[in-house]
Amino acid sequence: MSDPSPLAPGAIVGIIGGGQLGRMLAMAAARLGLRTIVLDPAAECPASQICNGHIVADYDNITALDELAQRCDVVTYEFENVPVRGVERLVGRVPVHPGTQPLEVAQDRLAEKDFLTAHGLVTAPYAVVDSQDAISGALEAVGGTGILKTRRLGYDGKGQMRITADGIPVDAFAQLGAVPLIVEGLVDFEYEISVIAGRGVDGSMTSFEPSRNEHRDGILAASTVPSGASDAVIAEARRLAALLLESLDYVGVLGLELFVMADGSLLANEFAPRVHNSGHWTEAACSPSQFEQHIRAVAGHQLADPVRHVDATMVNLIGDDVDDLAAFHADPRATIHLYGKSDTRPGRKMGHVTTVTPR
Amino acid sequence: MSDPSPLAPGAIVGIIGGGQLGRMLAMAAARLGLRTIVLDPAAECPASQICNGHIVADYDNITALDELAQRCDVVTYEFENVPVRGVERLVGRVPVHPGTQPLEVAQDRLAEKDFLTAHGLVTAPYAVVDSQDAISGALEAVGGTGILKTRRLGYDGKGQMRITADGIPVDAFAQLGAVPLIVEGLVDFEYEISVIAGRGVDGSMTSFEPSRNEHRDGILAASTVPSGASDAVIAEARRLAALLLESLDYVGVLGLELFVMADGSLLANEFAPRVHNSGHWTEAACSPSQFEQHIRAVAGHQLADPVRHVDATMVNLIGDDVDDLAAFHADPRATIHLYGKSDTRPGRKMGHVTTVTPR
Repeated sequence: MSDPSPLAPGAIVGIIGGGQLGRMLAMAAARLGLRTIVLDPAAECPASQICNGHIVADYDNITALDELAQRCDVVTYEFENVPVRGVERLVGRVPVHPGTQPLEVAQDRLAEKDFLTAHGLVTAPYAVVDSQDAISGALEAVGGTGILKTRRLGYDGKGQMRITADGIPVDAFAQLGAVPLIVEGLVDFEYEISVIAGRGVDGSMTSFEPSRNEHRDGILAASTVPSGASDAVIAEARRLAALLLESLDYVGVLGLELFVMADGSLLANEFAPRVHNSGHWTEAACSPSQFEQHIRAVAGHQLADPVRHVDATMVNLIGDDVDDLAAFHADPRATIHLYGKSDTRPGRKMGHVTTVTPR
Repeated sequence: MSDPSPLAPGAIVGIIGGGQLGRMLAMAAARLGLRTIVLDPAAECPASQICNGHIVADYDNITALDELAQRCDVVTYEFENVPVRGVERLVGRVPVHPGTQPLEVAQDRLAEKDFLTAHGLVTAPYAVVDSQDAISGALEAVGGTGILKTRRLGYDGKGQMRITADGIPVDAFAQLGAVPLIVEGLVDFEYEISVIAGRGVDGSMTSFEPSRNEHRDGILAASTVPSGASDAVIAEARRLAALLLESLDYVGVLGLELFVMADGSLLANEFAPRVHNSGHWTEAACSPSQFEQHIRAVAGHQLADPVRHVDATMVNLIGDDVDDLAAFHADPRATIHLYGKSDTRPGRKMGHVTTVTPR
């Protein structure tokens, strides 16, 4: 189905997934005069409070998907674990960006590593693990110390276990669910950066300045720009993101996480085929934000080369962090953004705060 | 009724009026984790696409107002022509900010001028006109040239007529509807500025830097910061806005329009007891925006002294201006904000664009 681009004000963007990313995409769409319909099984999902319509159904519900295709002018998704067969149901009925291939690649850590290395990006060494017995040999192949990860459905540090050659738990494979795994060699990187990059329907590409990311308990804790990376590292990071966008024939915004090595080389960690937590600072510090950039891309509008107005640090509000915002309220440089989640749970992302300082 | 301040995430802010100001207030509330219920008779009003609930009813519908009071933790309004008796229905049932007095004052040009002058602000000369015969004497009293205006329900240049002593139309009073009028003496000002100022439940006050405003056909066309006014003029403008906030015992944000005279003195033109079109640039250029500041105030949160990160010019998209946004899409410094209105009509505010440049 050809793209009816660009979408005029009043057109409808479908969003599969109604979490905080869908919520912020819906806000960006609204500011561009577009309407949104969200597909999410949770009646109280964060995006439901912002979107124009909410189809409450599972992501692979055929009736719901057909309704989404029928009511929307274009469809996108806000998380990488949308069932591919659901998105395939839409194809041919309504334009879908970024399409099925980025999902297929991003949903499987093995497919992802294979794709990255096949297209000129370097990753940490990795090997397949399909049984308890295979762990030892795979670990040796990646250097003797590594992280065992489920190939599918891992996020925020879930489905992972760090192992060394002399201490492989006898039930490691079982502990991770006896599902297909990979082991990634542990690399001694200096720090992590990520690039939020976008590609339009016309193939034009643009990226935000990479942020430096800190994690805590496997969850992103903070992202800061400027990252402290050299100009050469920044340029290389942007080049790699553009390479990935091209390789996937991608339309929309993605987030690419990279490890910066002592010699300045970059290893690709993983990418997410969607707006990314490490790009939330763009809302407070850039025009346009990553959310607007993604909506522009899927709506067929021209992308804008983003301008960063200020230095910025974004911190996630995780679990009961959200209970004490008074200090942030008092700081005019702090932009608070909460997600409308009514239940605070440990490890749950409740919001974020971006603190800016003049450049 | 005492204020249950500050409101916790998930609390509900009622907004009377669902136009673009209500829409932008609802977005700001959402980012602070608050929910919104809008009262507006138009099922398709701009805020209906963003808010969490929409009571479709007239502003003086008692049943609707009682429902609003029952469902909300605090109520505010987005335009100054809300019937005072409607807001009075809420008082005692739910906290209402900024309350009834600012409405009563702002709804009647005579009451407004009287209030401003009684509280230390200087206005252009003005006189009451209650009949055709009274025009001549009133005009003489204000200097011989002036603008005849309806006392109530005028906006965007509607309900106004410029007159001179030697050319008073014989049906001037009838043309303006044979309703109570005032005549304002024409003043030879250099330019107009406006101050967006806010006051919290605790009485603390803060203001945004004044913008310089240009009008076309009686409608705001553009607002620019910096305004070009001297530091002394800026300080005096902010002092007057604070004086007005105090005089009204105001909670929330208001917009005060001021004429800058050749000698640097300031005449108060009018104020609006709400967020103001001339403050839309704050969304793209400041943290917090006028919308967030207003929500903070009515929700009982601490106000933040706003920081302006960039220079900015906001232009309104009026009528079919909205049909050609390609040039703005191409400019990364341009933040487009459309209001979700499906019918484009001449003179209708369809959106705005704020173009920013580094300071």
